[in-house]
Amino acid sequence: MIKVLRLGHRRGRDDRISTHVGLTARQWGADEIIYSGERDKSMIESIRDVADRWGGGFEVGYTEEWKKQFREFNGFKVVLSMFGEELSKGMSEVKEIDEDILVIVGGEKVPSWLYEDADLNLSVGNQPHSEVAALAVFLHECLGDENLYRELEGAEIKVEPRRHGKEVINLDKESK
Amino acid sequence: MIKVLRLGHRRGRDDRISTHVGLTARQWGADEIIYSGERDKSMIESIRDVADRWGGGFEVGYTEEWKKQFREFNGFKVVLSMFGEELSKGMSEVKEIDEDILVIVGGEKVPSWLYEDADLNLSVGNQPHSEVAALAVFLHECLGDENLYRELEGAEIKVEPRRHGKEVINLDKESK
Repeated sequence: MIKVLRLGHRRGRDDRISTHVGLTARQWGADEIIYSGERDKSMIESIRDVADRWGGGFEVGYTEEWKKQFREFNGFKVVLSMFGEELSKGMSEVKEIDEDILVIVGGEKVPSWLYEDADLNLSVGNQPHSEVAALAVFLHECLGDENLYRELEGAEIKVEPRRHGKEVINLDKESK
Repeated sequence: MIKVLRLGHRRGRDDRISTHVGLTARQWGADEIIYSGERDKSMIESIRDVADRWGGGFEVGYTEEWKKQFREFNGFKVVLSMFGEELSKGMSEVKEIDEDILVIVGGEKVPSWLYEDADLNLSVGNQPHSEVAALAVFLHECLGDENLYRELEGAEIKVEPRRHGKEVINLDKESK
């Protein structure tokens, strides 16, 4: 089980980045995302709406107490930052893990104790970067591409991969 | 040489996503990004400012005529979308390419002829996703992680990878 914790959401300014973090978590096959920071019903509903229409069991939540969630998580906790361990070194460790994983991404202001207290402070590059990019590559390294094209239960809509052009299929939910 | 073309930037609404697209292109080792859509000096300056302070030769430009740039690009043109060829199939082809590569990412409204006219319409998953995530994984598959920790010429600042904690080094430009 992989759960993503997205820190420090700010309404307005972070809407699209936080949405992209959620969509990225869902597409690669994480099981759940929890947002913290400012409560933002419309952003969270927009992700849930995608999950409803496109299927699968992805869960979306919000917490006011992310520190508690972090401390009480029973598994391996990895924070993605530009300050952490090099990717190849860190991933060789992550791939051996047989526990649930909590992946934490910022957020503008990540308290520095988090880089100490997590089991692993992992960098996906140490240049200024993007939490969306970092999460995508981390999940891609963890889970590969096998989830990228899976059939999702309850989907109303799906896309057929095409080398050229575009093919969107509306599925008849009633006939399932 | 890898050049990224980011379509359809809108001031305000896309500021942070477009910035993340640029930072992602830079970190993975693309050579250049060209923005189209609304001209946005401050967004472009913010990326150039990162490139100046953190070093390396990453170039940032803007064009009003992206269709001309697309048509006249001398090399392999790949558009990243949720409609395209499956990643593993597409990447096996991309890895054989010995030409310059133009990577095109949306943008809310990508004209559908682009999915036909590009050499390859490549999906990084066919669920609703993020152009930042798609670009990151495409570049990661193309270039691996060898650029993620390279020393960059002219840098004023750099980060030392650490498994725990955070270490930022200010470099003395004068002493170089």
